[in-house]
Amino acid sequence: MPEKIDPWSSKLEVKNYDKLLKEFGIQDFENMLKRIREPMLTMKRGIVFGHRDFDRVASAMEKKKKFVMLTGLMPSGKFHLGHKMVADEIIYLQERGARTYICVADIEAYNTRNQSLDKLRKTAIEEYLVNYIALGLKPRNCDFYFQSSRSSDPEKANAYYKLIGMVSNRTTMNEMRAIYGELTPGKIMSIFTQVADILHPELPEFEGECPVVVPVGVDQDPHIRLTRDIATRMKGNKEFDFMPPCSFYHEFMPGLKGGKMSSSDPNSYIALTDSPKAAKEKVIKYAFSGGRDTVKEHRERGGNPDIDVSYQMLRFMFEPDDSRLKKIRDDYMSGALLTGELKQFLIEKLTAFLTSHQKKRESAKKQVDKFLKK
Amino acid sequence: MPEKIDPWSSKLEVKNYDKLLKEFGIQDFENMLKRIREPMLTMKRGIVFGHRDFDRVASAMEKKKKFVMLTGLMPSGKFHLGHKMVADEIIYLQERGARTYICVADIEAYNTRNQSLDKLRKTAIEEYLVNYIALGLKPRNCDFYFQSSRSSDPEKANAYYKLIGMVSNRTTMNEMRAIYGELTPGKIMSIFTQVADILHPELPEFEGECPVVVPVGVDQDPHIRLTRDIATRMKGNKEFDFMPPCSFYHEFMPGLKGGKMSSSDPNSYIALTDSPKAAKEKVIKYAFSGGRDTVKEHRERGGNPDIDVSYQMLRFMFEPDDSRLKKIRDDYMSGALLTGELKQFLIEKLTAFLTSHQKKRESAKKQVDKFLKK
Repeated sequence: MPEKIDPWSSKLEVKNYDKLLKEFGIQDFENMLKRIREPMLTMKRGIVFGHRDFDRVASAMEKKKKFVMLTGLMPSGKFHLGHKMVADEIIYLQERGARTYICVADIEAYNTRNQSLDKLRKTAIEEYLVNYIALGLKPRNCDFYFQSSRSSDPEKANAYYKLIGMVSNRTTMNEMRAIYGELTPGKIMSIFTQVADILHPELPEFEGECPVVVPVGVDQDPHIRLTRDIATRMKGNKEFDFMPPCSFYHEFMPGLKGGKMSSSDPNSYIALTDSPKAAKEKVIKYAFSGGRDTVKEHRERGGNPDIDVSYQMLRFMFEPDDSRLKKIRDDYMSGALLTGELKQFLIEKLTAFLTSHQKKRESAKKQVDKFLKK
Repeated sequence: MPEKIDPWSSKLEVKNYDKLLKEFGIQDFENMLKRIREPMLTMKRGIVFGHRDFDRVASAMEKKKKFVMLTGLMPSGKFHLGHKMVADEIIYLQERGARTYICVADIEAYNTRNQSLDKLRKTAIEEYLVNYIALGLKPRNCDFYFQSSRSSDPEKANAYYKLIGMVSNRTTMNEMRAIYGELTPGKIMSIFTQVADILHPELPEFEGECPVVVPVGVDQDPHIRLTRDIATRMKGNKEFDFMPPCSFYHEFMPGLKGGKMSSSDPNSYIALTDSPKAAKEKVIKYAFSGGRDTVKEHRERGGNPDIDVSYQMLRFMFEPDDSRLKKIRDDYMSGALLTGELKQFLIEKLTAFLTSHQKKRESAKKQVDKFLKK
């Protein structure tokens, strides 16, 4: 849990996680770790901190039974390290047998961001899909689809869209307002579509009965809760009988400046297409430091890795070796390691990753068609 | 216009029609009559009293250009004379070249009436489609479809459902509330679906640019208005460019007891599967009379055909000969014709129609597959 791993993290954060865990019935992921043969780095480090019904997924993985991983992407802006974190989860689950459903939320983007479908499609492919492939996504058992054109198989297309039409019957305006605040017709349509996205893999036209798991940031839990409630209300319905979907929750990777990593602020993120030089400059210029104001003070009193963005990026993904990470942490806290040196560790890792990844992107571009032809 | 044809009809009705014509910009159908080579009986008699942009349809009919007739049906209960009236309009337009789209609003029925899709499908086919066929609907250029499974052509299915997802972006909650009153999620979904139903024939995957006309009861005008507004707001959009749909409006055929002909009250309607004997009994027992309390008073002062349901049924559909209808009307008003005699006229016509229609239903049942295989 976050408070064990991040003893200095802000009280608000801990309180929020606590609230999520207790009030909303999210389960602690730590208990799940012993059931997973090769947990992800973010799972072992408690960055993945909570789940709902992940037991069903763990069982399916153990017994090599069918299960589905589903994620949605909003095709806007650059694919950055925050997106990579989700991509790593997708690929981790695909490698462990998940049928992989990746939904391009183009209807949602059209309704809420007013971009043309053509432009959204281009972004989804050139930014998201190419990066997924370069990170290791495989076409086998992967259904990469657009909300606006679900399938070239008419049975599948009709079944999916039918479900969008039907889920609306199992919620109320009050419930939706409580979850989403002020509603617009476009938002409402997006919500119905999203609920159907999460539920539809269990339709007989798709995978049939099996666990469906959605990896999400904690802010996405309301969607999951609504979808689980609707699934429960549909249970026993001859035509639509779903198990509530499973989920697991990760902390947010901090943006460079310490807040959110946001597509709308290029100085808050490292994009996977940033040149190593540009990335280096961003880290030097913007990465929020947990160090002291002067070298002298830092040497004496040490820095705070838990608010230091460079340290967090190493922790989230760039330093897989726990003992080396611990040494960095200890040295930073003791004052032996300076902010400039810490940033240098990150820059080296980032440079290696971006150089290698951008080469992989070139061959990934040639594989795009394998994911789009269905 | 109603006030010319029904001088004694209630003031409220006239006021409502006036309001529709003036406040909501519905155009008088009378002006359209000279442009139509063979107008329907209900058009000539002013029962079809208003329209929106029917000029475009009249032009297409004159020039034998492509146009679409679209109607929706809610598959609940028995198919009665009120439904026959719309069926006659559908078939009239099909015979004059319309591509005929008949939408089974099963998603709407599911969301608002809580019936299973299977049951709704059965009713749509056995009640509605069989009667349409027996009344003269032809499979050529006829697209009889279910909202829940639009097409076995994936391009068509995806295009239709994509449009449902997109129209939500062109209205607001306030506009929808002003039109429909209290909204539920199921209602909202039904509205988006209905708007797409009316607009989608113009998509390139269907007919492309051409007039689409919807024959409706006056109570349905709000749907038409919303759809026309949304179409106008989508104009110039590269992906979705529609002309506002056309419409025409008929008065309601009165129910037997004088109010609405309602599926939920069997004594308010004559179903097309009622036996001639049952129909006769309903007319004798329930048909509201415009006659006087006693024969003596009737002979002296005459009856009121405008509130007499038997007379209205003759006027709406069962007495095609204008001079004979005029004689019935005059005789009833003068007192020469008694209510029992008037009812007898209707019963004879009804008996002949039901006997012949129910024979046609038997062969119609064998043709159902031609409408369902696409």
